[in-house]
Amino acid sequence: MPIASTALTNVIRALAMDAVQQANSGHPGMPMGMAEIAEVLWRRHLRHNPGNPRWPDRDRFVLSNGHGSMLLYALLHLTGYDVSIDDLKNFRQFQSRTPGHPEVGHTPGVETTTGPLGQGLANAVGMAIAEKVLAAEFNRPGHDIVHHSTYVFLGDGCLMEGVSHEACSLAGTLGLGRLIALYDDNGISIDGHVEGWFTDDTPQRFAAYGWQVIAAVDGHDSHAVDQALLAARADTARPTLICCKTRIGEGSPNKVGSHDVHGAPLGSAEVAATRANIGWPHPPFEIPDAVYSSWDGRMRGNVFENNWKARFATYQAAFPELAAEFSRRMSGELPADWSAGATQTLGEIAAKGENIATRKASQNAISAFAPRLPELIGGSADLAGSNLTLWKGSQGISRSQGGNYLYYGVREFGMTAIANGLALHGGLIPYTATFLVFSDYARNAIRMAALMKLRQIMVYTHDSIGLGEDGPTHQPVEHVASLRLIPNVDVWRPADASETGAAWVAAIERSDGPTILALSRQNLPTVTTGVAPESMRRGAYVLADCPAPRAVLIATGSEVTLVLDACRALADEGIAVRVVSMPCAEVFDRQDAAYQATVLPRGIPRVAVEAGVSGFWRKYVGLEGAVIGIDRFGESAPAGRLFDFFGFTVTNVVTTVKSVL
Amino acid sequence: MPIASTALTNVIRALAMDAVQQANSGHPGMPMGMAEIAEVLWRRHLRHNPGNPRWPDRDRFVLSNGHGSMLLYALLHLTGYDVSIDDLKNFRQFQSRTPGHPEVGHTPGVETTTGPLGQGLANAVGMAIAEKVLAAEFNRPGHDIVHHSTYVFLGDGCLMEGVSHEACSLAGTLGLGRLIALYDDNGISIDGHVEGWFTDDTPQRFAAYGWQVIAAVDGHDSHAVDQALLAARADTARPTLICCKTRIGEGSPNKVGSHDVHGAPLGSAEVAATRANIGWPHPPFEIPDAVYSSWDGRMRGNVFENNWKARFATYQAAFPELAAEFSRRMSGELPADWSAGATQTLGEIAAKGENIATRKASQNAISAFAPRLPELIGGSADLAGSNLTLWKGSQGISRSQGGNYLYYGVREFGMTAIANGLALHGGLIPYTATFLVFSDYARNAIRMAALMKLRQIMVYTHDSIGLGEDGPTHQPVEHVASLRLIPNVDVWRPADASETGAAWVAAIERSDGPTILALSRQNLPTVTTGVAPESMRRGAYVLADCPAPRAVLIATGSEVTLVLDACRALADEGIAVRVVSMPCAEVFDRQDAAYQATVLPRGIPRVAVEAGVSGFWRKYVGLEGAVIGIDRFGESAPAGRLFDFFGFTVTNVVTTVKSVL
Repeated sequence: MPIASTALTNVIRALAMDAVQQANSGHPGMPMGMAEIAEVLWRRHLRHNPGNPRWPDRDRFVLSNGHGSMLLYALLHLTGYDVSIDDLKNFRQFQSRTPGHPEVGHTPGVETTTGPLGQGLANAVGMAIAEKVLAAEFNRPGHDIVHHSTYVFLGDGCLMEGVSHEACSLAGTLGLGRLIALYDDNGISIDGHVEGWFTDDTPQRFAAYGWQVIAAVDGHDSHAVDQALLAARADTARPTLICCKTRIGEGSPNKVGSHDVHGAPLGSAEVAATRANIGWPHPPFEIPDAVYSSWDGRMRGNVFENNWKARFATYQAAFPELAAEFSRRMSGELPADWSAGATQTLGEIAAKGENIATRKASQNAISAFAPRLPELIGGSADLAGSNLTLWKGSQGISRSQGGNYLYYGVREFGMTAIANGLALHGGLIPYTATFLVFSDYARNAIRMAALMKLRQIMVYTHDSIGLGEDGPTHQPVEHVASLRLIPNVDVWRPADASETGAAWVAAIERSDGPTILALSRQNLPTVTTGVAPESMRRGAYVLADCPAPRAVLIATGSEVTLVLDACRALADEGIAVRVVSMPCAEVFDRQDAAYQATVLPRGIPRVAVEAGVSGFWRKYVGLEGAVIGIDRFGESAPAGRLFDFFGFTVTNVVTTVKSVL
Repeated sequence: MPIASTALTNVIRALAMDAVQQANSGHPGMPMGMAEIAEVLWRRHLRHNPGNPRWPDRDRFVLSNGHGSMLLYALLHLTGYDVSIDDLKNFRQFQSRTPGHPEVGHTPGVETTTGPLGQGLANAVGMAIAEKVLAAEFNRPGHDIVHHSTYVFLGDGCLMEGVSHEACSLAGTLGLGRLIALYDDNGISIDGHVEGWFTDDTPQRFAAYGWQVIAAVDGHDSHAVDQALLAARADTARPTLICCKTRIGEGSPNKVGSHDVHGAPLGSAEVAATRANIGWPHPPFEIPDAVYSSWDGRMRGNVFENNWKARFATYQAAFPELAAEFSRRMSGELPADWSAGATQTLGEIAAKGENIATRKASQNAISAFAPRLPELIGGSADLAGSNLTLWKGSQGISRSQGGNYLYYGVREFGMTAIANGLALHGGLIPYTATFLVFSDYARNAIRMAALMKLRQIMVYTHDSIGLGEDGPTHQPVEHVASLRLIPNVDVWRPADASETGAAWVAAIERSDGPTILALSRQNLPTVTTGVAPESMRRGAYVLADCPAPRAVLIATGSEVTLVLDACRALADEGIAVRVVSMPCAEVFDRQDAAYQATVLPRGIPRVAVEAGVSGFWRKYVGLEGAVIGIDRFGESAPAGRLFDFFGFTVTNVVTTVKSVL
């Protein structure tokens, strides 16, 4: 006996309702309004394999309105992922598989962590770009081994967020024909009916971006949704937005269409009324076998994957090297010769000893590494010539072609969230760039990269007052310190070309989180002659020493050369000090205590020098040491004038050292 | 003899070219492409008075593409503001009046600080809202004492930034009919011709927001620009976007239309060629008297202001109290009875001693203060019911009416930058709200509020893992510490209702910068019984003491009650400790050294306890003290479970104190 489609839809409503009720904490009932859309997409369109959630050519699915997490958990459970009914009963409980918002790496089948609105949509744009780029690189006539869609659910909140503009505008420009967005247009956000604060003509807006827009679809009409998805899949030249008119809390007789249902459980009486209303007679968390078997996607998923495997086998026979490279790339492993090549490059950088801006040294590092690392995919938020992110092999990605470089436009937040999507997809290592001060615009996407443990390399140039005349709006003061506070972010501020090279190698080799490179606009002299890259890779190391130092000077980036000068001036006065270069505090903090003590021995006063806020350094210099920093906004003037004005002079360092002896 | 309009336009080009050349540092030549637009707007439409730049009902002008600062400086100089030719010669020099980007409060006639793209546009939206709100509040039939336009120049960069979407979408919803934006559509951004990364149909996009769009205006045709401005002013029901097609570097024979002109001086040869090409024979920085007198706007400005003064005098006669209130409001002074009322309210809060969430205490404070402080204008990014920002006198602002509350929608960045515009306009004190974690989205606008010394109060609730089940995407960990790093921001994290009240009073009374209130979702017990508000206002104070403390426990917010419990447990073991509540570290840092030493005496070990990253606290506890904090991302679970898991227990505090004795 065929299962009624309503039962297959209403099981989503029942599971969502029961799990939210059991968790008994404020949480959206949104999944109820998206039940038909989800059922149609997951059972009829989505090419995925619950038995092997990481199969490379699966369709990607992103729940950008992540507060509807129970929708996703219900789908994962029903289709056969390793998410049990007990997991659903533990919704929002400590270390369960069903946390309040979906978390990638935590729950099988979750492709990205969502919750901060708009970013899931940008991640999806990144995934679709990854698919386009990898398809262009690896597919051969008759061999489409990369060929999948990216689906994303989103709500009003995602559409109000600015990052949706940035990501969708670029998606339109690039003609991402395998990106399909489903807009849950329920007219409700947390504050109530949206017409008081959100009156965009969304179809017109997306048409302005060059998307295919399928407007006015009844989100509770499975046939209409199905037809819209078919039309979306048919247009491979443009991304598609399907606008689904829905009723929030659909199925609840008394709360449907009300924002009460957005942030709170229905309550037991209304749950009972809803059960009756939708004709779902089963007790909480009990699902008839027939419903289960109708939802089970493992067999279907196996077919998809096996078909792909067969195609891949043919491809492998025809293009064995490409196939091996594709497998390596999707595994996230670096090339076998990576390590040897990196060592050689670092040796060459050291031998050259160029006195250049670290942003230029970064470009040299990219130029050296990129030819051996085709997974590197670069980009800048309209500052390629300032961030120095292009190299001679850079090939801009456009509507008509793949490549390895994205001209992101002036879209720092979108760039960073899109790059998270590139990293999540696999096969690519994104590097992104802007001025350090504008990391502010991208900040929550940096946090999300850290939370998701993604390998994204952020090239942030113009790293201090050293940028000069552009003034306080462009001069980072608090940024290096405040980025260091985000858990799982490594922030490198290299002192010269060699430290920059070492930082790049560390960033590329780091597979469990993002790395920020804070780089100078201005030229910096070589200060690390004779220093082994292994020392730099420990995050901090003794750069200049003496038999019995009376103080330790700690500096980063452009201030290392200053403290070396001060060290010499102090020596002239008979005061012996040690100089420590600390290009990456987080890496140093991960070293064992014994190494840390050899660099920063107890009992010797310390002075830290960095052109940024001073408070950060108290964790290294304590209350007794001193910090030369900048605890106010900068000024518009030539850089040299500013360094003098803010006390970054040999005289001031010498005086400060004497004050702590 | 009448001055040819071309001379009046080309003087802008000449000044921009000469000043950029003299500064000899990379800087956009953009002003050359906007010369006709600027000339038409400033000489024929803008109602302002160079002799009195702060006249209340002047039209506001915002240069959102702030890198074109020399355009604005040239206009200020030519029209008669206190910006001299020597100031122009000092373009981008140390502490000159002509810094790299326009800075409000620094240069007469500059209405907002711009440079970070998109935010000037959002500021302008805020100014236009302020005008609408104040007009609704103060105007009376026949007495339009508030009636001015807000003009904003913007470029491709502003339009690519997400914040432009947030601000312009809301501007459309609110029908800001006196907001007029002029888009400098030159098809060039720093990376080159924008068609590779920016292909929006911008007129269609803005039509989707409900704006009047005047498309395809030739930006070098003064008559066309004039007509467009007339049409813009005629539509008072919708904001207007005028799309001006321009050529970047117009006038330069060899660099016009090229992005070379965006980030670098023309060079002396091309400057000479340009002089010849535009027929400007005068030496650098020399301007014929006839050109000066034709530009001089002081007489015209006096007429505007005097007309307004006459209208205001009539208004004053008819509505003396309203007129006095308007004058007070625009001066930024608090009401005469503010201080007495605040003291009384704080007394009432203390007397009640309610054990409530500090977000609820914040709502109570708003409810108490707002009736006496009509300049308070609230709002939340779609979290009114969670942030608790509404009070019974809240009146939502809409297309058809003014009010004192903005439903900002899910637009944290736009909200904060719009509120900066409200504060810049004058007459209003904005408070804005979201979850603390989403301060990330708004971060650069917070920084701009601090840089501009604006009174904006940011109500950031759900301030720690104490929010519970929503999990790591919603749990701030690094945010309190990282917001403290932004210069000139006061971050309060109050422990109970009384500290919350004191924090609100401090925020309202602070006239030279923004204040952040980090507030709990969960209920907190009263811990400050008997503590005077004056103590709290010093940022940190001794909350519980003993004759000879062996350690000092420092805590903020929800952790204060924990350290008080630990203090009692330690006392039971015969270990006497002092407890310091530190609701605002920045305010404490501004106290004199003597007071600081009475709170944190030297020689006694210190332990800090805060549910956030630990490094910040080393500036208070040194290397010898200890910190109980959270240096990783949170988890999705009930709050109590999380506090236990992360070591926020009496047992752990007791053990930690013993470890430092």
